[in-house]
Amino acid sequence: MRIARFSLNDVPQYAFVQTDDSDGKDYLVALSGFPFNSQAMQPTGKRYPIDGEGIRLLSPVIPSKVYGLAKNYEAHAVFMHEHGMTKVAHAPEDMMIFGKPSTSVIGPDDPIVFPSFSHDMNYEPEVAVVIGRIAKNVPVEHAMDYVLGFTCVNDVTLRDLQGSDPMWTRAKGFDTACPLGPWIQTELDWKDAAISFTLNGEDVPGASGTTAKLIHGIPEQIAAISSFATLLPGDVIMTGTPNATGSLKPGDEAVVTIKGIGSLRNVVVRG
Amino acid sequence: MRIARFSLNDVPQYAFVQTDDSDGKDYLVALSGFPFNSQAMQPTGKRYPIDGEGIRLLSPVIPSKVYGLAKNYEAHAVFMHEHGMTKVAHAPEDMMIFGKPSTSVIGPDDPIVFPSFSHDMNYEPEVAVVIGRIAKNVPVEHAMDYVLGFTCVNDVTLRDLQGSDPMWTRAKGFDTACPLGPWIQTELDWKDAAISFTLNGEDVPGASGTTAKLIHGIPEQIAAISSFATLLPGDVIMTGTPNATGSLKPGDEAVVTIKGIGSLRNVVVRG
Repeated sequence: MRIARFSLNDVPQYAFVQTDDSDGKDYLVALSGFPFNSQAMQPTGKRYPIDGEGIRLLSPVIPSKVYGLAKNYEAHAVFMHEHGMTKVAHAPEDMMIFGKPSTSVIGPDDPIVFPSFSHDMNYEPEVAVVIGRIAKNVPVEHAMDYVLGFTCVNDVTLRDLQGSDPMWTRAKGFDTACPLGPWIQTELDWKDAAISFTLNGEDVPGASGTTAKLIHGIPEQIAAISSFATLLPGDVIMTGTPNATGSLKPGDEAVVTIKGIGSLRNVVVRG
Repeated sequence: MRIARFSLNDVPQYAFVQTDDSDGKDYLVALSGFPFNSQAMQPTGKRYPIDGEGIRLLSPVIPSKVYGLAKNYEAHAVFMHEHGMTKVAHAPEDMMIFGKPSTSVIGPDDPIVFPSFSHDMNYEPEVAVVIGRIAKNVPVEHAMDYVLGFTCVNDVTLRDLQGSDPMWTRAKGFDTACPLGPWIQTELDWKDAAISFTLNGEDVPGASGTTAKLIHGIPEQIAAISSFATLLPGDVIMTGTPNATGSLKPGDEAVVTIKGIGSLRNVVVRG
């Protein structure tokens, strides 16, 4: 099941995304209510073509907080070391958890604004987990019960600020640093979800990977984070970027694709 | 003017805090609406003694995000160095900005829960700024126009985790790490506000200070943060702890006092 948030003439609402067998196209089946309280979610009886006039897909959630894992794939840790960005050649044993604020979240097709105070903005395609119900001190074996679904995220990072901004508050928390979408997929083979990235229409094979290579798996991430902070419905965990990352420049079109979910497209503009 | 948030029989609402000349006691003058939209804030006609039955003061805001400044007083930077917690003896030239999530916020008299995964929890008394309206790219000279008021904060920190948790996500972002209150004071001599701290009723003179000694002043903090992230009404900036910090243990009563605002009291419990 795919759950999207969209606006029609600037009024936001939720919808199921359904492919019509007759024309093969995606439609938004509008819903009243919120997906975090499923008994209240009812079809309104209205259906819109996903590319219809006045329709705009929004970030599928406005999370109260976004957590991310740094260097959670060995290939990415090695890449960062080989490119002189980290001293250590291997991923750390402990999870390296950071946060992004809700104000950094943007939706599909929203512009990524390249801040004037940076000269090196990077893409990081990742699988994002969307929490479905309140999670605190959740054991690993029950962690997936707290997940509503999965979406694509681009963990946009100002690489040149990570050194002078030790908590990455600017580097990963600036406005527009968290493109999220295009919708929440509730069914995903999350143990082996393929991540790929295209820049200006060209596949970047070095940036691709699969969650099968995660160092700290998704249930382990939920358990670890919920051991110190309460995860609220709609909160997001960015599970890590699998391999190489690279520069984004004004005018670039960045597309994160997760097989089984879909594609998240954003264009970079100068701030 | 003092603006509090309280609950009466678990229903939260806002109030002005007014001292009655006849008995010298504080009363809550209940309001409808929210202080971030002042034209909608109207007295309901009800008034309650602040220590009345069923009355509980709440965190005066639920911020979408909390920013904090590390080592923003020279005395604190020197203290941290002398106690072997930082390599550098002086405060950094650039602002060191970190974040806490909304789930870390608690109110007056709420328990600070000492997590089982830490052995060294510290208090950090600070002046907190409460943002009143949307702030983005605000110049220093207009920054104070975006402030609703000020409150007390205890920037509770798991000192033993700051090394292994490089972004301080656990160390400063765990549930209950952000006691806030007791109310928002809209008039404060914020250029010279005196901060003090008592532990179990005893004054801790080494922890005290005044915002007159801030390295990066309050308008400069608002301008800097709003240059990369949009500050929303209710967002909070913790301006820095002035000097020494020290351990909190289960059973301890921690009271942060800002002259001109009031006192924020919390007791530590074992997690």
